[in-house]
Amino acid sequence: MSDRGFTVWFTGLSGAGKSTVAEMLFHELQARGMKTEILDGDVVRQNLSKGLGFSKEDRDLNILRIGFVADLLTRNGVATICCPISPYREARDAVRAQIGDFVEIHVHATVEEIAAHRDPKGLYKKALAGEITGFTGVDDPYEAPEHPELVLNTLEETPQESLQHVLTTLVKLGYLDSAEQLVEGDRLHSGMTDLRVHETGHVVNES
Amino acid sequence: MSDRGFTVWFTGLSGAGKSTVAEMLFHELQARGMKTEILDGDVVRQNLSKGLGFSKEDRDLNILRIGFVADLLTRNGVATICCPISPYREARDAVRAQIGDFVEIHVHATVEEIAAHRDPKGLYKKALAGEITGFTGVDDPYEAPEHPELVLNTLEETPQESLQHVLTTLVKLGYLDSAEQLVEGDRLHSGMTDLRVHETGHVVNES
Repeated sequence: MSDRGFTVWFTGLSGAGKSTVAEMLFHELQARGMKTEILDGDVVRQNLSKGLGFSKEDRDLNILRIGFVADLLTRNGVATICCPISPYREARDAVRAQIGDFVEIHVHATVEEIAAHRDPKGLYKKALAGEITGFTGVDDPYEAPEHPELVLNTLEETPQESLQHVLTTLVKLGYLDSAEQLVEGDRLHSGMTDLRVHETGHVVNES
Repeated sequence: MSDRGFTVWFTGLSGAGKSTVAEMLFHELQARGMKTEILDGDVVRQNLSKGLGFSKEDRDLNILRIGFVADLLTRNGVATICCPISPYREARDAVRAQIGDFVEIHVHATVEEIAAHRDPKGLYKKALAGEITGFTGVDDPYEAPEHPELVLNTLEETPQESLQHVLTTLVKLGYLDSAEQLVEGDRLHSGMTDLRVHETGHVVNES
């Protein structure tokens, strides 16, 4: 079973918890001896998307580029984890069609909840006040998936509970044998996403 | 042995024969039941490098981007074939350092030889006459590798002879068990590279 590649695609707002759960999943798959890669925001922006901005066209191009790489890995047996905001449904659906073995997970949290609980630097508050523009979920669109394989409510669940839902879903879909959590301690996750503002006024780890 | 990934990197001028030999190698590796991918010019330009131009900076960015993807594939056991012109030594060496299991093959032909024998549309002649600018090998640099694993003289060798040198080199380096050519007939190669000029005056399949 471990030779069958698949892509787990986390989509959701900045600060919703995508990277946290994605990282925990990565360690779980590693602990199973599986080939796995995580294409996270910083790696992608550095290596694939340097020069792209935050227009719809550039955001879509970024998503299609991540999808292209995820497809190459998936068809060669790698369990591939992606966690870009990916705000547009059409681009996500194009990637799903390309990859086939595609597990879409909506990491759900409302702007109000993130602004209240996960925004130590006040970026969402600034966006809500109009001081930052082009902010996904505030003045830039976020189109939630209509039929994701899973929805995580990360403000009601602990990261461990969210991870458990992901593992259980992957077992149901035939990609994993066991939903047991194998990893404990430090490698669980590296902490809450650190939202930072780019010189253009956008959030740095958006991708 | 087939689980060990590596990258075969063909570098050389437009029209030197990179894609022809790369494609033949791809079919040979497929015939051995190996996981293999070919990152060729059109695929790369469409999926990774849309928007990049032909400045040194953009050419290097293109190479590093191909290298990033080749590294992801290689470390997951895929025999990865790349055939971008990759005119700058420093960028190629950076990719070599990143990937490790890197086999650099200089597909050698001089501008004069290509212009005389492999240039049905006369692009090299136009470049030599100054009608097209930024043309690698004419008025734009091509830095040949100093220590490639192999040099192919494609104007003295047949494609089958070049392929044989590649297979023999891969056996010597421990990446293949047998240098025997397994593929015959139509899948040998799809013919000489069709050089086309882009609206910017550059060669379309340069990458």
